Amino acid sequence: MAAQLRETTLRSASKEVVLGHERPFVVIGERINPTGRKIFQEQLRAGDLSAIERDVAAQVAGGADVLDVNMGVPLTDEPELLAKAITMVQELTDLPICIDSSVVEALEAGLSAYQGRALVNSVTAEDERMEQILPLVKQHDAAIIALPNDADEIPMESDKRLDLVAKIVRVATEEYGIAIDDIVIDPLAMPIGADQSVVQTTLTTIRRIRDEHGLNMTLGASNVSFGMPGRHAIGAAFLPLAMGAGLTSAIMDARTPQIVESVRGTDLLLGHDEWGMNWIASHRAKQAAATAT
Amino acid sequence: MAAQLRETTLRSASKEVVLGHERPFVVIGERINPTGRKIFQEQLRAGDLSAIERDVAAQVAGGADVLDVNMGVPLTDEPELLAKAITMVQELTDLPICIDSSVVEALEAGLSAYQGRALVNSVTAEDERMEQILPLVKQHDAAIIALPNDADEIPMESDKRLDLVAKIVRVATEEYGIAIDDIVIDPLAMPIGADQSVVQTTLTTIRRIRDEHGLNMTLGASNVSFGMPGRHAIGAAFLPLAMGAGLTSAIMDARTPQIVESVRGTDLLLGHDEWGMNWIASHRAKQAAATAT
Repeated sequence: MAAQLRETTLRSASKEVVLGHERPFVVIGERINPTGRKIFQEQLRAGDLSAIERDVAAQVAGGADVLDVNMGVPLTDEPELLAKAITMVQELTDLPICIDSSVVEALEAGLSAYQGRALVNSVTAEDERMEQILPLVKQHDAAIIALPNDADEIPMESDKRLDLVAKIVRVATEEYGIAIDDIVIDPLAMPIGADQSVVQTTLTTIRRIRDEHGLNMTLGASNVSFGMPGRHAIGAAFLPLAMGAGLTSAIMDARTPQIVESVRGTDLLLGHDEWGMNWIASHRAKQAAATAT
Repeated sequence: MAAQLRETTLRSASKEVVLGHERPFVVIGERINPTGRKIFQEQLRAGDLSAIERDVAAQVAGGADVLDVNMGVPLTDEPELLAKAITMVQELTDLPICIDSSVVEALEAGLSAYQGRALVNSVTAEDERMEQILPLVKQHDAAIIALPNDADEIPMESDKRLDLVAKIVRVATEEYGIAIDDIVIDPLAMPIGADQSVVQTTLTTIRRIRDEHGLNMTLGASNVSFGMPGRHAIGAAFLPLAMGAGLTSAIMDARTPQIVESVRGTDLLLGHDEWGMNWIASHRAKQAAATAT
């Protein structure tokens, strides 16, 4: 029998966004992140957060539903920087925030600066990580992205990933009192260039997590096309495949219309856009914008 | 237990194309068809087939693997016209042909003019249609597209469609000696605008036909977006969804790069494009074309 399908509620001070299997896909804008951006890193190191304004505007304009905020810059006080960035992003937009860091103290500072129900990115199935992060998630009434990998190995078989999902669910709910609806699994998307079977493994993992656990899921959508030409087209093909299997959100760059359209078209086709209202409204807005220029 | 996965071999005089669940998706170019094209209809009525040359060139350039040829013009001798068109298309390209007509005599004339293994489009589950068409398919050693509808009703539930698929398979193999590999099912794609659940029904039907029969499938990909704005984007989202469920070919307009790219990207992601050779080669060709202009 298929598992009960879960819903994950995120909130800013004034806006609610719900992840769910019968709902429109949730686009988590990924650009507010200095990884691989040298100039942005230097600005942040110098205490200049002004670039965030432009990044937030671009993700919002592209149709993001939630914003991922990551301030992982080497040789900075990441907790302080992340708290500042989260305060700033809350002034710029009413979208809920996904607080993204591998540093526990930064997650804690970010959660303290946030008004609402955040999504915390992320925890793994490692006991030590769960011990550090899950109490924070519980204390701040947040939801959590969990990756089914332990130690430093990423399992290449869906069986192993499902074992770790079961472990995370058991520990988070039984030991830390986190609601099962608030656990969002990252089924792990790997680059297709490395091995032609990795996407099939991800799709199988997604389908099994939906059928066996009913959990919401998110992943880094651009990972699959890493190292390949035509990355936008690959992303635009990957998301319908993943959504058909049960993916309910993705961390992705909302600035690429081809990929956002592919997500919204798939919402329409899967019956998650009642009467096609969102699809038709966005088409009208595009036409109006084209006429205005 | 999942059914054995089938392969359907089509041939022109010099080229072979195989439909299969572990193979690249087969794009059947749909444009050589006067339906809804007034000028083309008038030309054909006047015996002027010259427009076919341009249509064939465009479908081939867009990456079609097979060409659908339909000459359904009211008030003409369709058998004669279709035979002429098929002779002409064979002179213009080495791609295999899908012979498309609702008139039995036209299918017969088309098959007689064709050198190779054609795909015949189409038969339904109606006894009378099967009696007329299946002996022709057997006699000419062709493959057949079969629609799981009877009388003039299109079943809106996948159970009913699956019943009709089972009937077609039984009759075609047992009564007419057609190989099961040569039966290609059209799972019936309906416009999403009419009812938000129709695509889910099509996807369920596709998944069940693959799992229960292992048959190849094709459908008219543009049907789903009929009446909606942003048709190309809907088509580009639909095909990955359908391919993820088990669709192995589609009758579609190869002139739209966004949709053809979505198919080839999905081939890559599903592991049906070994080493990503097709994807990388087509990206290089595009770059070379862009540099040349």
